Amino acid sequence: MPAKGAQVDVIVGGGVVGLSVAWRMAREGRPVTVVDPAPGKGASYAAAGMLAPVSEVTYTEGPLLRLGVASLRRWPAFAAELAADAGFTGEGDATGLVTGPGAGTGSGAGAAPAEVRALDLRADGTLDVAFGADDMAALGELAAYMEKLDLPVERLTGRECRRLEPMLAPSVRGGLLAPGDAWVDPRRVTAALLAALERLDVPVVRARATGLLYEGGRVAGVRLAPPSSEPEHEHEHGRGEVPGEVRGERVVVAAGAWSSELAEVPVRPVKGQIMRLRSPQPLLRRCVRGTVHGSSVYLVPRGDGELVVGATQEEMGFDTKVTAGGLYELLRDARELVPGVTELEVADVVAGLRPGTPDNLPLIGPSGTPGLAFATGHHRGGVLLAPLTTAILLGEESELAALCAPGRFREIS
Amino acid sequence: MPAKGAQVDVIVGGGVVGLSVAWRMAREGRPVTVVDPAPGKGASYAAAGMLAPVSEVTYTEGPLLRLGVASLRRWPAFAAELAADAGFTGEGDATGLVTGPGAGTGSGAGAAPAEVRALDLRADGTLDVAFGADDMAALGELAAYMEKLDLPVERLTGRECRRLEPMLAPSVRGGLLAPGDAWVDPRRVTAALLAALERLDVPVVRARATGLLYEGGRVAGVRLAPPSSEPEHEHEHGRGEVPGEVRGERVVVAAGAWSSELAEVPVRPVKGQIMRLRSPQPLLRRCVRGTVHGSSVYLVPRGDGELVVGATQEEMGFDTKVTAGGLYELLRDARELVPGVTELEVADVVAGLRPGTPDNLPLIGPSGTPGLAFATGHHRGGVLLAPLTTAILLGEESELAALCAPGRFREIS
Repeated sequence: MPAKGAQVDVIVGGGVVGLSVAWRMAREGRPVTVVDPAPGKGASYAAAGMLAPVSEVTYTEGPLLRLGVASLRRWPAFAAELAADAGFTGEGDATGLVTGPGAGTGSGAGAAPAEVRALDLRADGTLDVAFGADDMAALGELAAYMEKLDLPVERLTGRECRRLEPMLAPSVRGGLLAPGDAWVDPRRVTAALLAALERLDVPVVRARATGLLYEGGRVAGVRLAPPSSEPEHEHEHGRGEVPGEVRGERVVVAAGAWSSELAEVPVRPVKGQIMRLRSPQPLLRRCVRGTVHGSSVYLVPRGDGELVVGATQEEMGFDTKVTAGGLYELLRDARELVPGVTELEVADVVAGLRPGTPDNLPLIGPSGTPGLAFATGHHRGGVLLAPLTTAILLGEESELAALCAPGRFREIS
Repeated sequence: MPAKGAQVDVIVGGGVVGLSVAWRMAREGRPVTVVDPAPGKGASYAAAGMLAPVSEVTYTEGPLLRLGVASLRRWPAFAAELAADAGFTGEGDATGLVTGPGAGTGSGAGAAPAEVRALDLRADGTLDVAFGADDMAALGELAAYMEKLDLPVERLTGRECRRLEPMLAPSVRGGLLAPGDAWVDPRRVTAALLAALERLDVPVVRARATGLLYEGGRVAGVRLAPPSSEPEHEHEHGRGEVPGEVRGERVVVAAGAWSSELAEVPVRPVKGQIMRLRSPQPLLRRCVRGTVHGSSVYLVPRGDGELVVGATQEEMGFDTKVTAGGLYELLRDARELVPGVTELEVADVVAGLRPGTPDNLPLIGPSGTPGLAFATGHHRGGVLLAPLTTAILLGEESELAALCAPGRFREIS
């Protein structure tokens, strides 16, 4: 006879991906338990939240682009349902969807729909700018590639760029507008997901999973690290658990960069340092990005005047120190794009670890081991790909599922 | 008949200057009370603590140099007495004085004296470096000026600079070593002063002084802001005070940049942003400074591996925001001097307000108003000049006192 908790799905990881999976499963009536020592405080806490499959595209990443475009299409409904489930309906219209340029808080007139206010979801587009002749040529090739894929882009002169975003540097020579690109505040997304899970009575065990439990050749749960002495890390046990473990029918590893600590999975940490500036009035209406001194920098404006500047990409193992060099690069490159950032207050600087994979595609779906599934390896795309990830795991997306199948890696048997 | 508190000296301001004045007076047996809403958390909290009169000298500041040299001479005894009074004697030799190069923790062999450990007092010298021909010429002129004043300096080639400090940038062309310059950790100094005051039973009223009380044409105390609801800001009343005021025979305004809120005094806030980096092992043995892109930057190494990078000088009124532009300048200039800082963790960034005066000299001594004295306007030199300031106020330094007399300004009648 199976243990009392045996029908449960155990989701290891409380970032945007893990919490989204738990929320969608619980919504379908499946019993789930989330395990995370500090939900919402991993890579999701550091993320900028760009939902920008188009402007992130490169020639070698056609499959990633397909995933991104498919997931962006799912975001408006995902956000509306999340805001409703979280109880973040407020006094506005909770049914309106953010579906295109101009629908976000940046330019929308009248009351914003609930998910816009709750998640700071905006769809005002990304402006990718170029400084030199080489950058201009690269943007031109990117535009041609996107047009070939029927993706909406507009080529702009420097003057047109500055007409859209007057704070851009005078040295900007041209740009590419991806009008459908959107963004969201990941910290608000995890807060909404945690609120929705609470309303759905999903237990969130605040502990670190240290290993998998096996039973008869199947994965049957996770072992937990001993409770810390801090009260906030105390385990909340539900459904008849033995202290020190959480048992379930299936374990979904959604532990981001830490996934390789639980299972043989080719996921490595890619450090990103990111900075939040505070602006008395918004400096930008769109996401603005560019390549400065060979490194890519982006500026993401929030509704409350916050301006996110990201992000470094560093192969440093499990190191989350904010460094002088990382900060320097962010500040130097942001100044180059938008000189006016100089006057802004520095509100926050954090470093997070993205879960990178050898082919830059996530691992979503069952492994070769019975009872073990993955929802990890999203690298820079966890927030964008969360809706698609839940759809794949719930069996609603079979074609794209093949691109993310964990079995493509030899290690996963 | 005077009120019970009438013999007391009221020191307004709990930075290095105000607390030093209170400590030296209490040591002489005079009853004193300190008033400050957050002792040690003003400009002293942001200060780097350089005791560097020689390398700070400029042609127009001959009088300031005299003050600095005189105060530096007083620092070793001041530090030893402070460490003893604070009870920071530990197991080491509390009588040894730090009097010259090589006596600090950076190069000293054996047990460091108590004040070295307690205050992180070091006297390993300052190395002022030059990059271009113009910088070299300016350093040459500075060296000639210092030699004329019989101040100890050594001219060094780029290679000699790097032999002393191997982490210096290869582009450094030459330098000037001021071997007697010292430095101290100002946060440890205020902690020691507060401990010494507690042992001497000196009341520290944690409230903001909002104005002066007058009685028969004399200043007779200060009014206090209503107590905040936070417990840490509750007033500790002593010596029969009326709630809402502290009365005394004399008020010494040592409120730094905020002094002009209490009295007509030509003191203005000069904002400084400063950064603390954390280094696994010390990157430097000496203070290193240089002029990069026209702005002066310095790096101050602490015994615990901390490296202080300072400081911006901004005329921004009472603004203490850490800005993107301020951080950028510090990081850019520090990298130029010592490229290895790039790898260091950013531990702390703060902004403080220096009390600037029209002639860059402090205001120390009685004003024209009976019962009112000043110990303010120390600009960048509060830590260095604290020992001399107490000596002037206690009547032990009559010649230099004239340079600092508040009466030199028309406003002070």
